[in-house]
Amino acid sequence: MRTTVGIIGGGPAGLLLARLLHRTGVDCVVLESRTRAYVEQRQRAGMLEQGTVDALRECGAADRLEVEGLVHNGIELRFDRERHRIDFPVLTGGRTVTIYAQTEIVKDLVELQLTDGPPLLFEAEALAVENAAEEPGAGAPLVRFVHDGREQTLTCDYVVGCDGFHGIARDAFPADLSRTYEHDYPYSWLGIMADVAPSCEELIYARGPGGFALHSMRSTSVSRLYLQVPNGTDADDWPDERIWDELDARFAIDGEWRLERGPITAKSVTGMRSYVHEPMRHGRLFLAGDAAHIVPPTGAKGLNLAVSDVRVLARGFAELHRTGSTQLLDSYSELCLDRVWQATRFSYDMTRMLHAQPDGDAFEDRLQLARLRRIAASRPAAAELAANYTGLPLAATVRAVGPTGVH
Amino acid sequence: MRTTVGIIGGGPAGLLLARLLHRTGVDCVVLESRTRAYVEQRQRAGMLEQGTVDALRECGAADRLEVEGLVHNGIELRFDRERHRIDFPVLTGGRTVTIYAQTEIVKDLVELQLTDGPPLLFEAEALAVENAAEEPGAGAPLVRFVHDGREQTLTCDYVVGCDGFHGIARDAFPADLSRTYEHDYPYSWLGIMADVAPSCEELIYARGPGGFALHSMRSTSVSRLYLQVPNGTDADDWPDERIWDELDARFAIDGEWRLERGPITAKSVTGMRSYVHEPMRHGRLFLAGDAAHIVPPTGAKGLNLAVSDVRVLARGFAELHRTGSTQLLDSYSELCLDRVWQATRFSYDMTRMLHAQPDGDAFEDRLQLARLRRIAASRPAAAELAANYTGLPLAATVRAVGPTGVH
Repeated sequence: MRTTVGIIGGGPAGLLLARLLHRTGVDCVVLESRTRAYVEQRQRAGMLEQGTVDALRECGAADRLEVEGLVHNGIELRFDRERHRIDFPVLTGGRTVTIYAQTEIVKDLVELQLTDGPPLLFEAEALAVENAAEEPGAGAPLVRFVHDGREQTLTCDYVVGCDGFHGIARDAFPADLSRTYEHDYPYSWLGIMADVAPSCEELIYARGPGGFALHSMRSTSVSRLYLQVPNGTDADDWPDERIWDELDARFAIDGEWRLERGPITAKSVTGMRSYVHEPMRHGRLFLAGDAAHIVPPTGAKGLNLAVSDVRVLARGFAELHRTGSTQLLDSYSELCLDRVWQATRFSYDMTRMLHAQPDGDAFEDRLQLARLRRIAASRPAAAELAANYTGLPLAATVRAVGPTGVH
Repeated sequence: MRTTVGIIGGGPAGLLLARLLHRTGVDCVVLESRTRAYVEQRQRAGMLEQGTVDALRECGAADRLEVEGLVHNGIELRFDRERHRIDFPVLTGGRTVTIYAQTEIVKDLVELQLTDGPPLLFEAEALAVENAAEEPGAGAPLVRFVHDGREQTLTCDYVVGCDGFHGIARDAFPADLSRTYEHDYPYSWLGIMADVAPSCEELIYARGPGGFALHSMRSTSVSRLYLQVPNGTDADDWPDERIWDELDARFAIDGEWRLERGPITAKSVTGMRSYVHEPMRHGRLFLAGDAAHIVPPTGAKGLNLAVSDVRVLARGFAELHRTGSTQLLDSYSELCLDRVWQATRFSYDMTRMLHAQPDGDAFEDRLQLARLRRIAASRPAAAELAANYTGLPLAATVRAVGPTGVH
């Protein structure tokens, strides 16, 4: 098999890239190791920055999102038994975010791709990327993969690894080129899905007794809630009533507010990690999304970063297709890493600010409380949070890429 | 001896408090353990927030400051071999800072106090504060001290400990009342004073190869410079030329700029610490300035926090004198700690952002570089830095103290 852009991974990054390429006339093939049913029900993020919504619109994948997505104009910070609203449009000059689950985006993109898009192979497990380096005399890059019970080869002009943190694309980077940056957090999230209408209109980020809690939602009838728990927590140690009681305690305020309970339909524990791999390009191989970087979920940046990566890539390939210039593709790593580090910084700060320190560092706890108080009291501090949360514009991260720059 | 307010410590906090009290008709006595010559040449901070300048003006101690103080409209952040100016008036709606050394403030205040002020005793070493708690039947609070070779007693209505981190006032807090919060930093500052005109108009905060450097000044002919060095550094291991070479390297930019060298007249190494003691009041004993809190010098907040403490205290004593109400004095600890924690947060953030991590935490280094880039690129982020650096208004920290509130 031969294609211009071989895409490893049929998550939102790979599928969106395929769609964006398809619309600019660049041909590609997507290899996804799992089944369609699996990728369509994998629970992930659900908070979309404006730029993510725009990208989905741009490639005609936003029809259902326009109807079912919930536009949010702010979030609530809750601490010291008080509530403080962060008003996004007021603080950012009109920007908002949209709640629409990643699984729904995947469903929409799979549907489009199978209808009129380039090839999308499920149960096609990539084994390795070869010939990624642009060495004189080297052959074309290729992806070796297993499909239909036999090993096959996808020969490409370029390969994009959208295959997540545990993917194989990153392995094709020579060890002496790769630099990795990591940070582990001393707590995890216990997340639940519950069949009950959300007890709030907007997301609530709470720092209560015992630590962090988040009230999010998937729809007007499904709530998504999270609790800070120690690393190594077993979800089975948390019967439903214990979860609701703990959520009640952490969201408690002085004044009227009530957390509605309902049947819990899913329960899982997730660790928190920051990870960045530099560079994001090696020769004719590009990494996008979780394959290159992981953020803790507190800032809701993982999916949005993946989308901004593939937006830059799609423009780069479009430029190459139209003009023969690799200028934008050559800037890919630098452009994306600038934004990746800003999101990494923001996700780290939100995480630290909202979680209790399990090692009993009272200084750190007071410091984080002072941060929350500052944001509640000060317009520039609140504006800075709102600007980061709603998403830095793609253009803000572009340095000197010339007239073909990303806008 | 008897007085209304016994003040332990004749540094800027104690002397300014005495001056402010004197002007509202509240009598006081200041006990200073050192000689006049010693306190008048102790090198300390030199960056005054607007509120600090205002307080000195208010009590008639700003005549020389008006002439010799250098008003600064901004600072420069220097990293990645580039310079980025933070414009205070533009970002804060007109606020500035003033460079005027703490030793000069002390000289001005000592002069005033000896001319027409309340008693100021040098070489009067406080030993202990007694009867601070407001227990029924307890006697008046008193300070035991040694002066003129014999132990004496100062009986007071109230005692204020302005006696610094190593002072004795804090010891009068019962152990079960005191909570302390501490953080040590894994680096120190090597500071020099040099007889050479500053190579810049405004302060330069640099994150260069090897770490932090600060170019400050005492006057138009005296430069004050600092270098991040490992903890435990001996200043003797740093001959003058090594210092200038290292400063050159850390301030280096792409483009024209030259660090002028001159005779180094003082050289010393200072550790970095964050420390907060809660509460700041116990019965009829109040703590102000370094006696209650220490910040690393990076945010230039130590002196300014001490001044804001005594401004609140002076208003509290004035209110008591005028109306008999202790309402403001009763809020003292809460009011001050709110501001103290904001300054602690800001000082910590500035320190972390600008220093290289000696333990080789590459993730942390990248995170801090992302912070600097964000501030250089974003107005809300720069505005937040400027607001904190020029000083949060006293009023911003006041919660519900009623019509007699601090403004």
